[in-house]
Amino acid sequence: MESLLQQSRSMCPFLKRTSPTALRTLATATRPNTSPGGGTMSNLQVLARRCPVMSKALAVQSSRMGGSKRFTSCAAGVGGIKPFCPAGKRALHTTGGHPASLAPGTYEKNERARPTLANTIPSTSAATEAAVRGPAPRAPISPPFDYSAFYNGELEKKHKDKSYRYFNNINRLAKEFPRAHTASSEERVTVWCSNDYLGMGRNPEVLKSMHQTLDTYGAGAGGTRNISGHNKHAVALEDTLAKLHGKEAALVFSSCFVANDATLATLGSKMPDCVILSDSLNHASMIQGIRHSGTKKMVFKHNDMEDLEAKLASLPSNQPKIIAFESVYSMCGSIAPIEKICDLAEKYGAITFLDEVHAVGMYGPHGAGVAEHLDYDAYASQDSAAPQSTKGTVQDRVDIITGTLGKAYGCVGGYIAGSAAMVDTVRSLAPGFIFTTSLPPATMAGADTAIQYQAANPRDRVLQQLHTRAVKTALKDLDIPVIPNPSHIVPLLVGDAELAKRASDKLLEEHGIYVQAINYPTVPRGEERLRITPTPGHVKPLRDHLVQAVQAVWNDLGIKRTSDWKSLGGFVGVGVEGAEDANRPVWEDKQLGLEPNESLEAAVAREFSAATAQLPPKLKTGTPLGASASPAIASTPAVGVAA
Amino acid sequence: MESLLQQSRSMCPFLKRTSPTALRTLATATRPNTSPGGGTMSNLQVLARRCPVMSKALAVQSSRMGGSKRFTSCAAGVGGIKPFCPAGKRALHTTGGHPASLAPGTYEKNERARPTLANTIPSTSAATEAAVRGPAPRAPISPPFDYSAFYNGELEKKHKDKSYRYFNNINRLAKEFPRAHTASSEERVTVWCSNDYLGMGRNPEVLKSMHQTLDTYGAGAGGTRNISGHNKHAVALEDTLAKLHGKEAALVFSSCFVANDATLATLGSKMPDCVILSDSLNHASMIQGIRHSGTKKMVFKHNDMEDLEAKLASLPSNQPKIIAFESVYSMCGSIAPIEKICDLAEKYGAITFLDEVHAVGMYGPHGAGVAEHLDYDAYASQDSAAPQSTKGTVQDRVDIITGTLGKAYGCVGGYIAGSAAMVDTVRSLAPGFIFTTSLPPATMAGADTAIQYQAANPRDRVLQQLHTRAVKTALKDLDIPVIPNPSHIVPLLVGDAELAKRASDKLLEEHGIYVQAINYPTVPRGEERLRITPTPGHVKPLRDHLVQAVQAVWNDLGIKRTSDWKSLGGFVGVGVEGAEDANRPVWEDKQLGLEPNESLEAAVAREFSAATAQLPPKLKTGTPLGASASPAIASTPAVGVAA
Repeated sequence: MESLLQQSRSMCPFLKRTSPTALRTLATATRPNTSPGGGTMSNLQVLARRCPVMSKALAVQSSRMGGSKRFTSCAAGVGGIKPFCPAGKRALHTTGGHPASLAPGTYEKNERARPTLANTIPSTSAATEAAVRGPAPRAPISPPFDYSAFYNGELEKKHKDKSYRYFNNINRLAKEFPRAHTASSEERVTVWCSNDYLGMGRNPEVLKSMHQTLDTYGAGAGGTRNISGHNKHAVALEDTLAKLHGKEAALVFSSCFVANDATLATLGSKMPDCVILSDSLNHASMIQGIRHSGTKKMVFKHNDMEDLEAKLASLPSNQPKIIAFESVYSMCGSIAPIEKICDLAEKYGAITFLDEVHAVGMYGPHGAGVAEHLDYDAYASQDSAAPQSTKGTVQDRVDIITGTLGKAYGCVGGYIAGSAAMVDTVRSLAPGFIFTTSLPPATMAGADTAIQYQAANPRDRVLQQLHTRAVKTALKDLDIPVIPNPSHIVPLLVGDAELAKRASDKLLEEHGIYVQAINYPTVPRGEERLRITPTPGHVKPLRDHLVQAVQAVWNDLGIKRTSDWKSLGGFVGVGVEGAEDANRPVWEDKQLGLEPNESLEAAVAREFSAATAQLPPKLKTGTPLGASASPAIASTPAVGVAA
Repeated sequence: MESLLQQSRSMCPFLKRTSPTALRTLATATRPNTSPGGGTMSNLQVLARRCPVMSKALAVQSSRMGGSKRFTSCAAGVGGIKPFCPAGKRALHTTGGHPASLAPGTYEKNERARPTLANTIPSTSAATEAAVRGPAPRAPISPPFDYSAFYNGELEKKHKDKSYRYFNNINRLAKEFPRAHTASSEERVTVWCSNDYLGMGRNPEVLKSMHQTLDTYGAGAGGTRNISGHNKHAVALEDTLAKLHGKEAALVFSSCFVANDATLATLGSKMPDCVILSDSLNHASMIQGIRHSGTKKMVFKHNDMEDLEAKLASLPSNQPKIIAFESVYSMCGSIAPIEKICDLAEKYGAITFLDEVHAVGMYGPHGAGVAEHLDYDAYASQDSAAPQSTKGTVQDRVDIITGTLGKAYGCVGGYIAGSAAMVDTVRSLAPGFIFTTSLPPATMAGADTAIQYQAANPRDRVLQQLHTRAVKTALKDLDIPVIPNPSHIVPLLVGDAELAKRASDKLLEEHGIYVQAINYPTVPRGEERLRITPTPGHVKPLRDHLVQAVQAVWNDLGIKRTSDWKSLGGFVGVGVEGAEDANRPVWEDKQLGLEPNESLEAAVAREFSAATAQLPPKLKTGTPLGASASPAIASTPAVGVAA
């Protein structure tokens, strides 16, 4: 046997590289098989079956040892496991010697013998030799793959690296927004991390539109867009979306995850030799879409224009290129230099793919997103009766805009907007669009209403921004490490997975405040955080309560303060000199209607009463906007919010 | 130049394999550049830039020819296109000779010269030679990729092969089910191709549940399952789904497209060396999931157990294997031999992944699908107060069941059900589940109600089956080519893309009947069809109207009849001897409550009045079940429906 091993090693690159000890372990590691087929197979045999030389040799061996009646079919069996063809069936790939003609059953007694290296990895000559020498065991069978062990192993990994997720049962109450009940319908908590940023999920116009559509058109669409699922709600919603972004066309998907995945996968795979340049902090949906495209990907450093330009410059100008990025990065609140990216795209012949998922409804005079916001005055002055040209604005220059109906618009679903030909191409080619049931009519109608409401009423997003500023200011004044950013996201740096979860649990259990901990893989290890998202409904008593609770939890758990990070040299912008100045809010004072020297809370109060005045009378009581009367909140000792 | 080519060919494997003529064509095929950068680049240069040797040589060349001020940045440019660094910047990767020191602008006059092979593919030595010899043109720049032309080209292909899709605007009316209005709200058509198979989209209990949930919990979930989007509706729905299928756990996704895609991609990519065995008629969502898994795929012939076994037998028994298939194949109505597949899976150590998308709600005493239906009596006798063991039933043996909430359950969304560890693994690893907004609370509540309603009330699916039988019988009696199958799908073979579309258009425009034409790529070319899906709401006058309209269209367009296909030897089961007997309905007479010798229409009438008696009084008028009073239908001359 040792000489056979030597012989095989001299021929086989795999065996040559593998130590005799390792080979012996591989060859003898077997488990008794509990499957109906019986038998055993060594790990080395498993490997051998994948080898183009050995698999044929094994087939020769098994065809010579036929005769088992255990399996009913003989079709296409190679590799020596099964099926075993009856004796007399012609031998496969015989390479030398005479075909074996031993009677079936001869080897039965050896069937469960422990395989040795000699019969485990017979070379072609070894197989012949065995046939000439006499009886040899049939190729043994190994046990089936252990699926349960695989699942449990994967879960164990998640537990070990603390990335296993426990879901919190949170039931957001439309009439008490932004409050929710937990698994118990009696227990109330305040939700501080929902992406229903503007409370549109409980907007009376949205709900009215949905109720009416439900009654008239039913619960579901009943088909794909091609087969009975295309209707006036889809037509109207896509028309509204195209107009919102000033594009020729739009296309609605089940979600923006699907929109990003399907669009990037389709364009990336169809454009010849396409390269997709992807911001390093891009969302999982874009990463997945790029992977699914199978095309070349170049990751540029987050918001780093030098790196992006270097990568663009390294590519031939006539090679198709897509720059994929976001406007607001939701976990840190940073905002992309959209205009500069458009400049680079033009310079290097690329197209831009901008994910405005966390920005639609939230930025711009009509809520179209950050791209619209960058030309605030040009868009704000648009008179729908006599619209002016917006040619050359940043939004106009972006080629593909994607967005969601499930965050600031309060419903569910996603979309793309762009040129008619691009949209029609994706509509015609993307399986994730073509072969799936349309969104329900009521969902599309509700989203359409939400978009139009926000296009006409900027007050919600102004109030949201004022609340964001108030929360950020109050927390910073208490040395709480708010990661500096120019957007509506309030990320608090914790820097440890277990600590972040404990802080989140403590806020929920001891303070009735729900803020989810954000851990790896959503953020890099070491950058774990709490991510707070204020809404127009987070009135002063709720904000005071939050700030006091965060202060208490930071004290209780001894979580690092801004000054601690500063003494360590600063981290992700916290405690970094100049980081605040580099992150001035996108919404300027003037755009928010802040009078010079007006305090933030005075402006909030003014906007709040104006916003309340817009509501129909029956909503003025019992709404979140009146939630300050809630006993749980009224009993919370107020802490000062600097304005 | 010829000698340089010889020299390069002796060194380069690409050049060695390519004929001189091909190389010359590649080297001279250029387009004038319209980009700001100007210049031209040959196709060979494009290729050369991708070569690890040539790209460096080109970089050397371009760094020596610097001086253009057209571009503002110099960062990291390689490949000779841009940016051109100012003279004096150190040369990159100089491999021989002296760095060039010619003044910028020297080569300007040559900039648009047609490149020759010599400067197009300079080897390292050629580049050096050029620098020594004197002036050479800078690497020219080609125009950017023409994105519009690409989009238009893709669309042109779709138009040319007749696979371009035109969507029909169909607005299904809840109170007039199965009727709808078109783009005009006044115009009525009868929908005969919706996947709202049971009319659950207008079921009063479903709508009531949705209205209440909308009012209490709002329009959207407001977050991913991990961040504020997990709630009691998700918990309850997944609990209901797990119970429905007799599994430990279930997980809800945006759609079953996403469920199939995410689950197969995740399991296939994570299980070491996994092989996915896929039925040749599997849905696009599974095909996509398998592709996205990146693992090995083996396609077995549709419902062919010999082929499946041969493929299973060719694999080592301890290699993980997933058999992915459907219960009801929606475009032909065929049904998988689920039990036999479970047998093979056990024999060969595979797990089964069964898509019951077109079967949930429709088969089985509780609507759990075909797997449940196969043990009809065992499940029908289940008393929820004292449930008996269903261990060893077909449904119990299937490892992973996937289904939709958007067809027979009338809402939207999809799910998987299986072991707790499998579901938790997918929940923990699948980006398409993790990083997307949850379904709205009202959608989940509505779906939960629909599932429970169907589990308790089999009448809708019994009536649906009776209507299906009546339609199939009536059409067959008129020699209309119904593709034989044992399910609720009524596919009519047309066999030509353009003819199928014309038949669909004619039915809609001349008869007020909406049946979508199913063309490539949904079905293979030559198998184009009309696909009819009866519902409990398709009462006799509507069925009579359909049969008469189909007869008229078949006459008008001269579409082949069953007898025509038979004279051609038969096709996809049409006109094939014995095909009917091989496709007896899954729902047996006894299960449908058909008395011996009872006519089909008598049974329909009996079931229909029983079903109507279940409805709340206010729904008994104005509902689809009372639609026979509709003038458009009343004026339609009745044609006999054989019973």
